[in-house]
Amino acid sequence: MIVTKLTERLGIRIPIVQGGMQWVGLPSLASAVSNAGGLGILTALSQPSPDALREAIRETQKLTDKPFGVNITLLPSINPPDYEGYARAAVEEGVRIFETAGNNPGPLIKFFKSQGCFVIHKCTTIRHAKSAQKMGVDFLSIDGFECAGHPGEEDIGGLVLLARAAQELEVPYIASGGFGDARGLVAALSLGAQGVNMGTRFMVTEEAPIHKDIKARMIASSETDTLHIFRTLRNTARVFKNAVSSEVVRLERRPGGAQFSELRDLVSGLRGKKVYETGDPDAGIWSAGIVVGLIKDCPSCAELLRRIEEEAESLIQGMTHLVVRGHAKL
Amino acid sequence: MIVTKLTERLGIRIPIVQGGMQWVGLPSLASAVSNAGGLGILTALSQPSPDALREAIRETQKLTDKPFGVNITLLPSINPPDYEGYARAAVEEGVRIFETAGNNPGPLIKFFKSQGCFVIHKCTTIRHAKSAQKMGVDFLSIDGFECAGHPGEEDIGGLVLLARAAQELEVPYIASGGFGDARGLVAALSLGAQGVNMGTRFMVTEEAPIHKDIKARMIASSETDTLHIFRTLRNTARVFKNAVSSEVVRLERRPGGAQFSELRDLVSGLRGKKVYETGDPDAGIWSAGIVVGLIKDCPSCAELLRRIEEEAESLIQGMTHLVVRGHAKL
Repeated sequence: MIVTKLTERLGIRIPIVQGGMQWVGLPSLASAVSNAGGLGILTALSQPSPDALREAIRETQKLTDKPFGVNITLLPSINPPDYEGYARAAVEEGVRIFETAGNNPGPLIKFFKSQGCFVIHKCTTIRHAKSAQKMGVDFLSIDGFECAGHPGEEDIGGLVLLARAAQELEVPYIASGGFGDARGLVAALSLGAQGVNMGTRFMVTEEAPIHKDIKARMIASSETDTLHIFRTLRNTARVFKNAVSSEVVRLERRPGGAQFSELRDLVSGLRGKKVYETGDPDAGIWSAGIVVGLIKDCPSCAELLRRIEEEAESLIQGMTHLVVRGHAKL
Repeated sequence: MIVTKLTERLGIRIPIVQGGMQWVGLPSLASAVSNAGGLGILTALSQPSPDALREAIRETQKLTDKPFGVNITLLPSINPPDYEGYARAAVEEGVRIFETAGNNPGPLIKFFKSQGCFVIHKCTTIRHAKSAQKMGVDFLSIDGFECAGHPGEEDIGGLVLLARAAQELEVPYIASGGFGDARGLVAALSLGAQGVNMGTRFMVTEEAPIHKDIKARMIASSETDTLHIFRTLRNTARVFKNAVSSEVVRLERRPGGAQFSELRDLVSGLRGKKVYETGDPDAGIWSAGIVVGLIKDCPSCAELLRRIEEEAESLIQGMTHLVVRGHAKL
């Protein structure tokens, strides 16, 4: 096994956290990841209400006795969801590990810390990481350009962003964006991270609540099959390249660009949900990171984490043999 | 020391290759890198003619008895340079290691292989890497989104691109784009590479033929201080963000975009050369990768490579302690 500050602090076996994923971070997946030795994460906003989140937490508790967490992502929104209600519900149901992400997380982080919870805050810049550090988060999740969903606007690939984190941060961090295998995990550890966050890779597992045709489509796709929408609105999101996302980009590239109101129907969350439910990859917008190019099968979470753990151990051992001591000939 | 297929094949001490850099890959730098245990590289097109390249090679041979190479980059050009002349001159002067890059490298690679030379071909996609593999190159250099100069148009960060290379390639590879320290080197080894290529990092060394004010500017800058020009011309290049490159991007973003002819004066190579000579960062366009954000000092090449070697060895040793065998408690 691989022991890091993350596994020690959370009491998990392998330093892998499941990413918060809208419509995907449900009890079936979160419990499977936790049972497999990682940290499963329920995505709060996949539930229609704080009470529905309570139900999802209880269901997860029935499926695993291992630690799991809840993700709350704060995104620009005309009618913001009841973030505080979700947060209180989760704490009241006994959740002690939270992943926060998005804009103005201060009040949420303060609340969780006042309740004695462990907070991982995800951010895409060193500046935001330092600011979250001041707010007292326990861990950071440093999310690079490769990620699914919102990479921010600075486009700094994980190779550099994580090494910058090693230079700048005092709080320990995990690596997000572009991780799906043992090579990535060991690279993240080399770059100073205490583990990785994997979203897209967990979408293609037996337990992910996603139609099998979508999983098959992801297996068949390559690292060039994602694109950025909302770049011109400065709210960039990386999603799977399909008819709908390509149309959004086309509209954004027209002279004069596009207003969000013109794109709203195309990008509706309910259409995205339909993709996972019906297996139609063109039903709407759905998230995927470039790591989709590395995914070649659909294992159970247990199989996946066992494989990553074994391969990572063997990669680390292999690397020690590259280091030659003493008076070498060269 | 760290022994990989790269160090073994080339007879060098540390698996670090200096990137080919226009106006920078001169004898002073190439010999310093080779003397420090890496592979120094003369950039052929920094010399005005094949005969001038001969002189540069002779000068380098006087400064080091270690192996060094010559880079020949094939770029879209209205009046292409005499690539074949440069290639013949280098081979005739005894150079046995070449780095090729750019479009249609087939004839050059064929020539070098016919002369018994060792060829590293740099490319930015798995497709091009496979094609170079068929041409018989000895090594590949897999160049990700983070790089200075030409990243291609697919924008795949090194974390994923290198792990894809591990899945797809039979020929060994080094990692390019975003590398400047020991963490990056160990990450690259984790991702299956046999070493790294560093360009931007070598720009900020004592021996780099660059004005001290530019080195100071690079030390003071962050990972957000580069931008992409020529994106709309599908010939993207990552350069330092300054008045000139910002103006190029502004012109490209006008409705209707910009023709190369409108940008030609702004991006002229001679203006770029002036930056390095005069120390005026706004004199023209000059290349830098996002790794510039990691650079905090201006060591000699010997100091830099010694530091990276020692830190990499210590990172690798540290990682082995994370792997815990036997019946752990967790």
